[in-house]
Amino acid sequence: MKTITSIEEMKKWSRLALSNNKSIGFVATMGCLHEGHLSLIKTSTEECDNTVVSIFVNQTQFSPEEDFDSYPRNIKSDKLILQTAGVDIMFNPNQKDFYPEEFQSFVTVEKKTNYLCGVSRPRFFRGVTTVILKLFNIIKPNTAYFGEKDWQQLQVVRTMVRDLNMDVSIVGKPIVRDKDGLAMSSRNLNLSKSERRTALKLTQALEIVQTLVTKGESSAVNIRAKIQETIEKKQGAKIDYISVCDPENFKEQTEIHSRVLVALAVRIGTTRLIDNRIIEKN
Amino acid sequence: MKTITSIEEMKKWSRLALSNNKSIGFVATMGCLHEGHLSLIKTSTEECDNTVVSIFVNQTQFSPEEDFDSYPRNIKSDKLILQTAGVDIMFNPNQKDFYPEEFQSFVTVEKKTNYLCGVSRPRFFRGVTTVILKLFNIIKPNTAYFGEKDWQQLQVVRTMVRDLNMDVSIVGKPIVRDKDGLAMSSRNLNLSKSERRTALKLTQALEIVQTLVTKGESSAVNIRAKIQETIEKKQGAKIDYISVCDPENFKEQTEIHSRVLVALAVRIGTTRLIDNRIIEKN
Repeated sequence: MKTITSIEEMKKWSRLALSNNKSIGFVATMGCLHEGHLSLIKTSTEECDNTVVSIFVNQTQFSPEEDFDSYPRNIKSDKLILQTAGVDIMFNPNQKDFYPEEFQSFVTVEKKTNYLCGVSRPRFFRGVTTVILKLFNIIKPNTAYFGEKDWQQLQVVRTMVRDLNMDVSIVGKPIVRDKDGLAMSSRNLNLSKSERRTALKLTQALEIVQTLVTKGESSAVNIRAKIQETIEKKQGAKIDYISVCDPENFKEQTEIHSRVLVALAVRIGTTRLIDNRIIEKN
Repeated sequence: MKTITSIEEMKKWSRLALSNNKSIGFVATMGCLHEGHLSLIKTSTEECDNTVVSIFVNQTQFSPEEDFDSYPRNIKSDKLILQTAGVDIMFNPNQKDFYPEEFQSFVTVEKKTNYLCGVSRPRFFRGVTTVILKLFNIIKPNTAYFGEKDWQQLQVVRTMVRDLNMDVSIVGKPIVRDKDGLAMSSRNLNLSKSERRTALKLTQALEIVQTLVTKGESSAVNIRAKIQETIEKKQGAKIDYISVCDPENFKEQTEIHSRVLVALAVRIGTTRLIDNRIIEKN
């Protein structure tokens, strides 16, 4: 595996691979890799001739009061993991090359970012779409793999790619959970033992919802109330949002007719966690 | 010459050309072609294996009260002109394919659009950068040619290409003027004979400024006053802006030290015209 930090070198490498008719799979991460990332990487190495993984922690998607500085980083371990996983390129550009002083161009997706994480993190999606478009332009992947834990992000990226006529296939992969059920996230590293026990209420709430709907519950109001009750049983969990919404446009539902996204964002101490589950009514 | 209206067909054509190692030159126009466009097209046909010209009138760069409906269109004559000029592809997608109902993604360049036309046309640059990025993604030109009449637009496109790591060279070409000195513009067609005489005051004002600076004038205040006086001598001309500014970041200057952009926007009847001149102090 090769580590590339220069944007120009990354461009050159990609264009050479493509001119040799080698396909490129890409996984955008912010490093501190876990099993969730590895599931995306595994699919990429199986499906594509080459796999590029970026571990760039993207400042523009954090608001000033957010956790950019405390976001977990571990390049040495990331490198070892990517080597073992059969990745071809670890791409780790530095912030100043990626966002030079005079940087001033942004990509925004409008409607789909007015809900869920777009409300509580006003800069988030603009930062995500901008960094992803830049990475796509540099790396030129044929296929890019995203985790469904960030369900809204996945839909926003799909929308950008469709609207802006970009040449890349976007593939979403299911949430990977730890043994105790907690959705894999780099931010889990910031949880204390007791906070982790609190965090498990997210998983539990989503499981309860699945059971309720299977048993015939179809009121979104009741479902939201049940989630709130489950999470607030534990002290130290502060709900950011509980949403029972359309999985594509994120509009809140009152009744579950067919397929909904149940999405949660909860602060546990200083750590904000998200989780979700697609629930289908029989 | 082939006319392509389908985005998919345009994509296929471009990718085939590129895979055959044929370079693509691109000129983005809104049709109603004139000598200014032809100067860009001529350079493209000389420098590139293939030339694509789009004649798409881009609704997203017009505000609701602006002249999208009355913007001049003449596809038949455009086709003949492009054929004669040796263009390979006239690209004319329809609005609904280009901006489907659920379209919601935009590219914005921030700092450079806070001046000049960005002030009086708040939607303009966002529309321009979005359409240009889409066209670049569809057509994949190696080089794209832009006229310096739209000087600010040229700099904004350059900034977008740099910031978003796009693979295209941007080439600017000098303003082409009619025999009477008026800068070529599709909107000139909307001028009555008497309005055209008024419009010539823009050219005249820029020539006067050049003479003044050559003679030693270096006060931007005096230059702005002289332009205003020249234009307002004619009834029916309403000044939108007169700017003596830095040619790259558009900040207003008080003194002319080396190289400035003198830029004008003036309404003549219902037609808004722009013109500019780069002035260098000896």
